[in-house]
Amino acid sequence: MNFELSEDIKNLQTQVRRFIREEIIPMENDPRQTPHGPTEDLRSELVALARSKDLLTLHASTAMGGKGLSHVAKAVVFEEAGYSPLGPTAMNIHAPDEGNIHLMDLVASDAQKERWLRPLAEGRTRSCFAMTEPAPGTGSDPSMLSTTAVRDGDDFVINGHKWLITGVTGASFAIIMARTEDDNATMFLTDTDKPGFTVERMMDSMDSCFTGGHGVVRLDNLRVPKEDILGEVGKGFRYAQVRLAPARLTHCMRWLGAAQRAHDEASHYARNRQSFGKRLGDHQGVGFMLADNEMDMLTIRLSILHCAWVLDSGGRGNVESSMAKVISSEGIWRVIDRSVQILGGQGVSGENIVERIFKDARGFRIYDGPNEVHRMSLAKKILAREDIRQA
Amino acid sequence: MNFELSEDIKNLQTQVRRFIREEIIPMENDPRQTPHGPTEDLRSELVALARSKDLLTLHASTAMGGKGLSHVAKAVVFEEAGYSPLGPTAMNIHAPDEGNIHLMDLVASDAQKERWLRPLAEGRTRSCFAMTEPAPGTGSDPSMLSTTAVRDGDDFVINGHKWLITGVTGASFAIIMARTEDDNATMFLTDTDKPGFTVERMMDSMDSCFTGGHGVVRLDNLRVPKEDILGEVGKGFRYAQVRLAPARLTHCMRWLGAAQRAHDEASHYARNRQSFGKRLGDHQGVGFMLADNEMDMLTIRLSILHCAWVLDSGGRGNVESSMAKVISSEGIWRVIDRSVQILGGQGVSGENIVERIFKDARGFRIYDGPNEVHRMSLAKKILAREDIRQA
Amino acid sequence: MNFELSEDIKNLQTQVRRFIREEIIPMENDPRQTPHGPTEDLRSELVALARSKDLLTLHASTAMGGKGLSHVAKAVVFEEAGYSPLGPTAMNIHAPDEGNIHLMDLVASDAQKERWLRPLAEGRTRSCFAMTEPAPGTGSDPSMLSTTAVRDGDDFVINGHKWLITGVTGASFAIIMARTEDDNATMFLTDTDKPGFTVERMMDSMDSCFTGGHGVVRLDNLRVPKEDILGEVGKGFRYAQVRLAPARLTHCMRWLGAAQRAHDEASHYARNRQSFGKRLGDHQGVGFMLADNEMDMLTIRLSILHCAWVLDSGGRGNVESSMAKVISSEGIWRVIDRSVQILGGQGVSGENIVERIFKDARGFRIYDGPNEVHRMSLAKKILAREDIRQA
Amino acid sequence: MNFELSEDIKNLQTQVRRFIREEIIPMENDPRQTPHGPTEDLRSELVALARSKDLLTLHASTAMGGKGLSHVAKAVVFEEAGYSPLGPTAMNIHAPDEGNIHLMDLVASDAQKERWLRPLAEGRTRSCFAMTEPAPGTGSDPSMLSTTAVRDGDDFVINGHKWLITGVTGASFAIIMARTEDDNATMFLTDTDKPGFTVERMMDSMDSCFTGGHGVVRLDNLRVPKEDILGEVGKGFRYAQVRLAPARLTHCMRWLGAAQRAHDEASHYARNRQSFGKRLGDHQGVGFMLADNEMDMLTIRLSILHCAWVLDSGGRGNVESSMAKVISSEGIWRVIDRSVQILGGQGVSGENIVERIFKDARGFRIYDGPNEVHRMSLAKKILAREDIRQA
Repeated sequence: MNFELSEDIKNLQTQVRRFIREEIIPMENDPRQTPHGPTEDLRSELVALARSKDLLTLHASTAMGGKGLSHVAKAVVFEEAGYSPLGPTAMNIHAPDEGNIHLMDLVASDAQKERWLRPLAEGRTRSCFAMTEPAPGTGSDPSMLSTTAVRDGDDFVINGHKWLITGVTGASFAIIMARTEDDNATMFLTDTDKPGFTVERMMDSMDSCFTGGHGVVRLDNLRVPKEDILGEVGKGFRYAQVRLAPARLTHCMRWLGAAQRAHDEASHYARNRQSFGKRLGDHQGVGFMLADNEMDMLTIRLSILHCAWVLDSGGRGNVESSMAKVISSEGIWRVIDRSVQILGGQGVSGENIVERIFKDARGFRIYDGPNEVHRMSLAKKILAREDIRQA
Repeated sequence: MNFELSEDIKNLQTQVRRFIREEIIPMENDPRQTPHGPTEDLRSELVALARSKDLLTLHASTAMGGKGLSHVAKAVVFEEAGYSPLGPTAMNIHAPDEGNIHLMDLVASDAQKERWLRPLAEGRTRSCFAMTEPAPGTGSDPSMLSTTAVRDGDDFVINGHKWLITGVTGASFAIIMARTEDDNATMFLTDTDKPGFTVERMMDSMDSCFTGGHGVVRLDNLRVPKEDILGEVGKGFRYAQVRLAPARLTHCMRWLGAAQRAHDEASHYARNRQSFGKRLGDHQGVGFMLADNEMDMLTIRLSILHCAWVLDSGGRGNVESSMAKVISSEGIWRVIDRSVQILGGQGVSGENIVERIFKDARGFRIYDGPNEVHRMSLAKKILAREDIRQA
Repeated sequence: MNFELSEDIKNLQTQVRRFIREEIIPMENDPRQTPHGPTEDLRSELVALARSKDLLTLHASTAMGGKGLSHVAKAVVFEEAGYSPLGPTAMNIHAPDEGNIHLMDLVASDAQKERWLRPLAEGRTRSCFAMTEPAPGTGSDPSMLSTTAVRDGDDFVINGHKWLITGVTGASFAIIMARTEDDNATMFLTDTDKPGFTVERMMDSMDSCFTGGHGVVRLDNLRVPKEDILGEVGKGFRYAQVRLAPARLTHCMRWLGAAQRAHDEASHYARNRQSFGKRLGDHQGVGFMLADNEMDMLTIRLSILHCAWVLDSGGRGNVESSMAKVISSEGIWRVIDRSVQILGGQGVSGENIVERIFKDARGFRIYDGPNEVHRMSLAKKILAREDIRQA
Repeated sequence: MNFELSEDIKNLQTQVRRFIREEIIPMENDPRQTPHGPTEDLRSELVALARSKDLLTLHASTAMGGKGLSHVAKAVVFEEAGYSPLGPTAMNIHAPDEGNIHLMDLVASDAQKERWLRPLAEGRTRSCFAMTEPAPGTGSDPSMLSTTAVRDGDDFVINGHKWLITGVTGASFAIIMARTEDDNATMFLTDTDKPGFTVERMMDSMDSCFTGGHGVVRLDNLRVPKEDILGEVGKGFRYAQVRLAPARLTHCMRWLGAAQRAHDEASHYARNRQSFGKRLGDHQGVGFMLADNEMDMLTIRLSILHCAWVLDSGGRGNVESSMAKVISSEGIWRVIDRSVQILGGQGVSGENIVERIFKDARGFRIYDGPNEVHRMSLAKKILAREDIRQA
């Protein structure tokens, strides 16, 4: 039992912390931010900053130019990155690219890696992950996947409707999940400029931190050659799990950084704003919120590190990542919401970054599996366990 | 003890309900809505709709063209109006105009009423209420008011800095709170096009339901003749209370309507979306949220009606309106947040009105007295009571 | 809409309040209280006190010697009674006798009333209600009722196992719920000293406010003549609803009184105990708890009164009593738990009555339908409603 | 970063787990348990069991016959012990003896260790810690200590009133905290059979797991020679901190075991009880509670281990132990309360051990510093930190 971070990780933490504070936070009010996320132009500029500090795509394999960070190292680095809404974009570790990179590193062919992964890991392109569908398709229940891929000679012909596809506008390529057989699905790689791949429209969204926003995609006889299958036919659901457990955890890490930022902003205000004859924070009603913030962040951080260690140790981490996801998404929400409350008028206005964090973070209780689905899954596992009670 | 509404109120409820559903909800996606609220153009069109149905400014005195609704009647009518984010604007019962009309009906001179109140009540102008100041001025602590009004002959000369002033852009006139003596403040009426009244900038905000948004105002030797004092010199804090207790309650009413809307949208989705082999709502994790929504709305509604009845019965209702404000603002938040969660991706995107309601409603735990200040005030009153415990 | 209580009710409230404070609270430390409730001796003495003030069994019909209180009147009177753990016992309005009296007043034959109800209403006997069974019998799911009553000539022969039967030790008679047909149940009246009715044992329990405690009953060929059927054959489940909706609500009333007591004790302590240089209550961490207590009690009280009014107005009140039950049982628990916390060491020791209230009250989230079952039932009703959303 | 336990600790965990399940749980219904805890007779028998398995007082120094467990090892072992309410008593690691042993190992003189610590560590005697006083003395505010110790020759003469003194009845000796100077306090060791040390009475209490219960002590010219001072004069408050940070943490450990027990009992019931056509746990309303239990226990366990590691690494752990105390005491309470709810009637009756755990555990949010005091202290530290926000 040892909670000490290695020197390497601590050094990286220091570098990233300094980078975010010195280079990225000053850009938070850059006007090239839209309700659909940073412009491509702003994104490129941010990526260039990280590249110049050798802080780009650190989680990618060394073969792809990254540092192949362990999950524990990611926990530390990604939290620091999340301290600014622009941090993950700058460091090329934002969703969905971060998870796509992770998945492709594991299952893509060499040719696919050279064609799609390398430029992605170098921050020169963006990607998207096309799984979610409007009703009656798949939302939180993967078995309802309705997009189909039908074999036609050496190709597959894909038809379907996808939405809430993050980053799709401007993405160079997509990973598409489609049903290939009754009970199975397959992942396909495809460039987005191919015939049959149409972004119908952008969706308005509460968050504004993802470049390319979220969009609706029509797949209309999209033809994909079999060599563009990601991994093997019929393993789509399995790969989704491979992608999701860690991807879910990296969301936890980044949002913990965002919560820390909100807390620091609220603490700053509580130290400096006077009200009713003392500092705001000297009122217990406010001080207790700050204390609760730190306790929430402690338990979130420990849950993330624990799950990361399980993954690093070779565990599948399904239970741990479900738990970390629920604990984190609810905990960071409490932290951010309290911070908004402490900041008062500034917390609900553009005067403070926390207002943006609040809107960016709400979705996390929903995506990567709604917390209700994780609770359902945890409950099933508990009930299925051997009953240890004595007669 | 009788919870029955009068026939008059029930009829009005039916009219407003129909009006909102038939005339206003269809306009919710009108493009003339900006992050700073509906455009003046859209507002005028909405107001015209309400006027044509004789549903405009119903709370104003009959002398000013309203129906002089009781507080209980307002509770019913305003809740119905709040069912759409555009409803209060259409019916001219939105903040801050609604509270300004109420206050001016009570304390303005006849001349002031003709000049400022009548056109406001007729929906032809808008107003604002300039009290809140940036640090180190007054936020939730009124004693920190730093704007000053100094007598100069028959005029007062006002200097100060105000922010979070709702509706200021496009408002014809303002009620300004300024310190006239050490421990006292005075309210002044002034047209906004006078020299010395400058809107420095608009503020970005989480909500987007208030026409004119929120702005920062510089008062720079603004000269106000003494006949434009609202009520009497030195009674500013008292009037603020006169204005705030009911204004706080009308916020509760409108937001309850918004919560009901969110709940209805979530219920609709829970009835129709399938997931894991049954309707979403048939999963207890979702069904319990719907049940909790209805219990929260019941207690909110009863608290509002109770406070309204106290006010109608001649009580000052300070304790009741503090309690109703805290109960409502926290309860509606839970309802709206659960509704977002049930709606999933739609709850955090522009696909459903609930996303907008969520962003619009967050501020209510902060404005009209942060809930922490109400709790502080309630605690003081509890402690000051005679101790009834027997020796 | 009128929240004013009638003069009659207010007078009764005053009388009961005085009675509880002057006569009953002084007896709270009487040693004749056991883990299984007050002794019969203590109960008789308490009942005599209420009788002498004409405050006994006020909810019974006038024919049975009561005042036939409306539900609203009960809400006021029972809350006052609940202010002391001994109050409901003294006034003969405790569970299960209170609900049995209510049910028998409605459905018992004249002969049954003379034989069983009159002495019960006069406080001379006690009764019990034998429905709940150990696994695999009926707990919260009535369809699992396993006790059977088989017709044999003019008699029914009852076999079964009941537990958690409140007040059974010392009860003169029981109302037994037994299955008479596949889908139906019947209620039977029986003296408890008949052959075949055996109290196997007393159960230890968290609460200690019910005379006779809770016991396990074995029904072994208990023979009941058909004239002792309560109401009609096959209507057991229906009567259970007739009994439960109001009985559930009277529990809310009494426990609200208990919560008020806890709050008053905590307020007293917060006013008088010094800590860290000021009164305990001057710390916001404590003051906010007091404020939350009062808000919880307000919403509970309003929910109860609203449901009582629905019942008085002829409504069945199923939804309202489910909601009032959940709102009350969770709200009073928060109030009592906060009061324990404020009282510190006294809150968890016999130094203060609140420790006893805490233990007495926990069960209320479980009995009269666990809150989970009420939420399930509310959710079903919500989902079954017509969908009002526009296309 | 490594969450793996050492082989030694895992072996010890297995031994203790088996011991508790095989030897201690079967004794849980032994009738020698009173509202004031196990009888001395039962305690001796339990201690003999642990002694026979070489599992007695494992945290004591090896010099005193223990194993000098690290804090991390204690975290594992004490959690296992807490799985039964009788476990800590059996293993001689219950409060207050456990903390007294820890403190005396650190600061007692060799002579004091031989006289008092050795028999205590061997389970042959019991001790108490006499700090808390009735109003207006010290409760949660140490500065209000009113018991005085006045030097008289080579002795100190102690006068004061103590209450909530756990284990005092039957304790051989006491550690008394008394004011020796204006701002300082001193700890004194004294046998309890000396003149001037009187147990006035036992206090009734919600818990029943501490041998000797809780009592009120009158110190009336109690004469203590200066060689019986524990440590140095004037260092009482400092030693209280030395004792409290770890003692607080060992409470967390034991109560986590109790929460795990409650959860296992509830899980067992949820797996086996049928209701509304399926297993209780298959209802999400119940299943979600089980999932929440496991998430709460995970975060509690990690918080404890983290703090234990800080202490093992030489840190003072003040912040960490405050946080672990609040996180644990509130988390275990949620777990136990949910378990009660799932168990229904059994959860509030003597049918299941969880009812006892519920009553035993409530005090933990209050003792070892009420959670409000920890939050106050955490808030102060947060506010005192350097403000890291950029200008």
